[in-house]
Amino acid sequence: MSKKNKLRIIPLGGLGEVGKNMMAYEFGNDIIVVDAGIMFPDNDMLGVDYIIPDFQYLVKKAGNVRGLIITHGHEDHIGAIQHFIEEINVPIYATPLTRGLIEGKLLRNNSQHKAQFKTIQAGESSNIGQFKVEYFHVSHSIPDAVSLAITSPAGLVIHMSDFKFDQTPVDEWPTDFGKLSELAARGVDLLLSDSTNAERPGWTPSEQIIGPAFNKVFAEAKGRVIIATFASLISRVQQVADAAAKTGRKMAIAGTSMVDNVKVARKLKYLEIPDEMIVPIEQALNMQDHKVVIMCTGSQGEPSSIVGRLSAGTNRQFDLKPNDTVVLSSHPIPGNEEAIGKTINRILRRGADVIDDKIAPIHVSGHAAQEEQKLLLNLVRPKHFMPIHGELRMLKRHAKLAMEVGIEKENIIVVENGQVVELVGKKIMLGERIPGDYVFVDGESIGDIDHDIMKERSQLARNGILLIDISLDKRSGRLLHEPEILTRGFVTPEEAETLLPEVRKRVMQAVNGGGFSSEKDLINTIRSYLHQETKRRPMVLVTLSKA
Amino acid sequence: MSKKNKLRIIPLGGLGEVGKNMMAYEFGNDIIVVDAGIMFPDNDMLGVDYIIPDFQYLVKKAGNVRGLIITHGHEDHIGAIQHFIEEINVPIYATPLTRGLIEGKLLRNNSQHKAQFKTIQAGESSNIGQFKVEYFHVSHSIPDAVSLAITSPAGLVIHMSDFKFDQTPVDEWPTDFGKLSELAARGVDLLLSDSTNAERPGWTPSEQIIGPAFNKVFAEAKGRVIIATFASLISRVQQVADAAAKTGRKMAIAGTSMVDNVKVARKLKYLEIPDEMIVPIEQALNMQDHKVVIMCTGSQGEPSSIVGRLSAGTNRQFDLKPNDTVVLSSHPIPGNEEAIGKTINRILRRGADVIDDKIAPIHVSGHAAQEEQKLLLNLVRPKHFMPIHGELRMLKRHAKLAMEVGIEKENIIVVENGQVVELVGKKIMLGERIPGDYVFVDGESIGDIDHDIMKERSQLARNGILLIDISLDKRSGRLLHEPEILTRGFVTPEEAETLLPEVRKRVMQAVNGGGFSSEKDLINTIRSYLHQETKRRPMVLVTLSKA
Repeated sequence: MSKKNKLRIIPLGGLGEVGKNMMAYEFGNDIIVVDAGIMFPDNDMLGVDYIIPDFQYLVKKAGNVRGLIITHGHEDHIGAIQHFIEEINVPIYATPLTRGLIEGKLLRNNSQHKAQFKTIQAGESSNIGQFKVEYFHVSHSIPDAVSLAITSPAGLVIHMSDFKFDQTPVDEWPTDFGKLSELAARGVDLLLSDSTNAERPGWTPSEQIIGPAFNKVFAEAKGRVIIATFASLISRVQQVADAAAKTGRKMAIAGTSMVDNVKVARKLKYLEIPDEMIVPIEQALNMQDHKVVIMCTGSQGEPSSIVGRLSAGTNRQFDLKPNDTVVLSSHPIPGNEEAIGKTINRILRRGADVIDDKIAPIHVSGHAAQEEQKLLLNLVRPKHFMPIHGELRMLKRHAKLAMEVGIEKENIIVVENGQVVELVGKKIMLGERIPGDYVFVDGESIGDIDHDIMKERSQLARNGILLIDISLDKRSGRLLHEPEILTRGFVTPEEAETLLPEVRKRVMQAVNGGGFSSEKDLINTIRSYLHQETKRRPMVLVTLSKA
Repeated sequence: MSKKNKLRIIPLGGLGEVGKNMMAYEFGNDIIVVDAGIMFPDNDMLGVDYIIPDFQYLVKKAGNVRGLIITHGHEDHIGAIQHFIEEINVPIYATPLTRGLIEGKLLRNNSQHKAQFKTIQAGESSNIGQFKVEYFHVSHSIPDAVSLAITSPAGLVIHMSDFKFDQTPVDEWPTDFGKLSELAARGVDLLLSDSTNAERPGWTPSEQIIGPAFNKVFAEAKGRVIIATFASLISRVQQVADAAAKTGRKMAIAGTSMVDNVKVARKLKYLEIPDEMIVPIEQALNMQDHKVVIMCTGSQGEPSSIVGRLSAGTNRQFDLKPNDTVVLSSHPIPGNEEAIGKTINRILRRGADVIDDKIAPIHVSGHAAQEEQKLLLNLVRPKHFMPIHGELRMLKRHAKLAMEVGIEKENIIVVENGQVVELVGKKIMLGERIPGDYVFVDGESIGDIDHDIMKERSQLARNGILLIDISLDKRSGRLLHEPEILTRGFVTPEEAETLLPEVRKRVMQAVNGGGFSSEKDLINTIRSYLHQETKRRPMVLVTLSKA
């Protein structure tokens, strides 16, 4: 059991879904990285645009990193590539559609010149450093997704990224059962697998059930149909096109990212939509309402998306009409339920109709549910199992499923991001913890805000701010004039009228009464007074000048 | 169709669930009010403790208000009573348990002396002004709940508050089918009914399914069982006590409100728990772990609840142990999913186990689902139907269900809070809109914060604040000394080091360069500079003094 044969498996990121946005495999002096995606901020991460994993560990060993392998083209797997290649510019291994989607994204962010690609195909393999990586097809809610069989001297590891066992997917390309069986026959030392739906019993329905639901909605809608989904949900675009053709509607696409993605997918033949089926949005807006389907983003209630703006009446190019039917073709991402609910209420208030996945089967998950997860475990019969792609509660649930199908408890390892796992001598064990957390992106550059800033924002958000500006006479230490008091987010103008003169009085007493020793004391005095009067605790700041 | 025979139905509050927290019925000079509850703030209502309906319309007509009828003892129906009776002190009609729970709550808030009660019983009726109000029993997730048949010269109206058709409820007291049939035989002019679960197909399961699930969890748990639920979910307490007795555990209750509520319910015989089954929490903490069940609050992930504190390791009286099993006996209220998910992850991280309603049937809803809603409509066969207790999307869904069972579209009316509905000449129609919105409660008194303050808080929360303090020479208008710059929630100390000197320089240029005309101009200059440099938009404030 020499140290030379140690494979280190390193999930990167903060407290989010383990190894989903970035995972590294390290053997000797070779590191391969799988996926580089973003996370969306929680509701209490105030003002954060998005989050990327902290990959300082990899930056320090940048000379050992041999490649970045991307399993599929969703944001949570590709969104951080632009930041990654700024620091570690290695070849990006991706299938044709995934590559096309990444290129589009890099182009929109002006980073396309930095990327070097190696196009791969399901069924092929690459030798990267001491790793042999075999790519095999999995069905997911985007075409051309792959998972990985990673062979190193430490053994054979399967990295099962986002997948489902759809027997009748839209692209007619199911998950590669044959390859899984072949790998099982070789003997799999460790299986890592997607836990997203580990809390969902049963079997995720096939994408095929969406077709009839779309046909019905399209046929029954009196006016326009507006379909909102994710810009990267390419298979859904095919289904909309098919239903539009069947019901005598033309299809228009609104929004840059979706337009770009569809263009790439059509060029590469992952979408089969005849030219005459697609009309520019400007033309669609002048057609008869019942002849039109508009596809756009905003199914998660994002205020800045097209559906978000339509619901608020602030979309520039077009507005909702009372006969419109808005279809939200997605399922709420946890944390978005409230925003989506409000968006639906707003659309209904504007007179249009809304159909979501509670009303009709117009969405299915792209991830395996419990029965599929158990099937995978039984197909592969791995020696060891490590659930990934989930928060702790999903991983624990997935671990329980694995025990149910007979994997021994001691052969299952559940860790969170930052905890290294080692495969050595055909055994798995905990390695060291590496530093690393979320990196928040707000505005221009990465890492400009941290947990301390978030704490200050949260304090400002809860109770607002009160500002005291005092000018002292250099010699006497007494006030030169009355203190200026400003507040934001704290009290109404009516309340301020009675409260602020009292605050001013207390500041003057504290300063001129001789009791003024420091700004800190003054802040404490005013804070307790404000809490006593209002039971609220605004942030109190003092600016002091002497003349 | 004289004006004299007009019944006005007035749902009060903001954009929340229609008529859930407060509803008024006005006929001539008589007004009765049904329920006075609170709402919990949305995630974007920063710093708000809770929300009550704006009832200024009623305050203006206080002389006409004859009574406040409370349908059951949940917070969203009783939580605003203390504020209501401050302004409109009329008799409160409530069943014994509901009255007991209200009294406990008023006592905790020192408002008990103001309340005058009239105790009612299901099966009885009251004449209040020109109204005759008949109370009939409904099963819900709290015992002693009633709904109302309200007769006025305008006709017979059924106000169906929170209910379900549980055939085997814990208190063995199902919804009064006989009364509903009797009312139907009399002819119901208008049915108002609970829409909470209008998006949920099928039939809500009976509370009875929880018993076996509890028995299993209690029997299998190696250590303590900690059950979190709502303080007012009295039936759940009975079920926990029963399962504890069956599995040889004693029960302890932690938390003032739950202790109070259980005391009231036991005294009034709505809970049948032998004395020897209940032990004080201090005693429970010294018993063998597998002999104990602790009930407490916190099933919604509230950080200040006992389970919230246990998950964070900040509970004073006791801490989590690795063998503990925490049971979250409730379903996420929309908007709380993220907080609950994080709480579960934290508990698991501390080594305890968690069981929620995804894992075992340890919770059922207290509200009728679609099949029950249709059954009610078919039982009552009302002339008109008005869905209540739901956001717009649930009301619209409920309206569709009503059409499915044969109520004509023109006899269904869907409105939001503030929109008066009139029943006159046996017809329903829209009345006027009355002013009214949410009243936010933050800290001591009500209505101290408004939408403007919320907007300021939201701006502070997104990007923080930058503060510029300048002192000018009275005569020359030039700076007396370098401006002071403070930030909170905006940039990290490292970023501040390079950014703030540049800001200072620009302030000095703007003021001393002769281009300084107003604080507003200065703010704009700095705002654009900050946005150009960081792509963020902090709030910028200037304090200016002259000497």
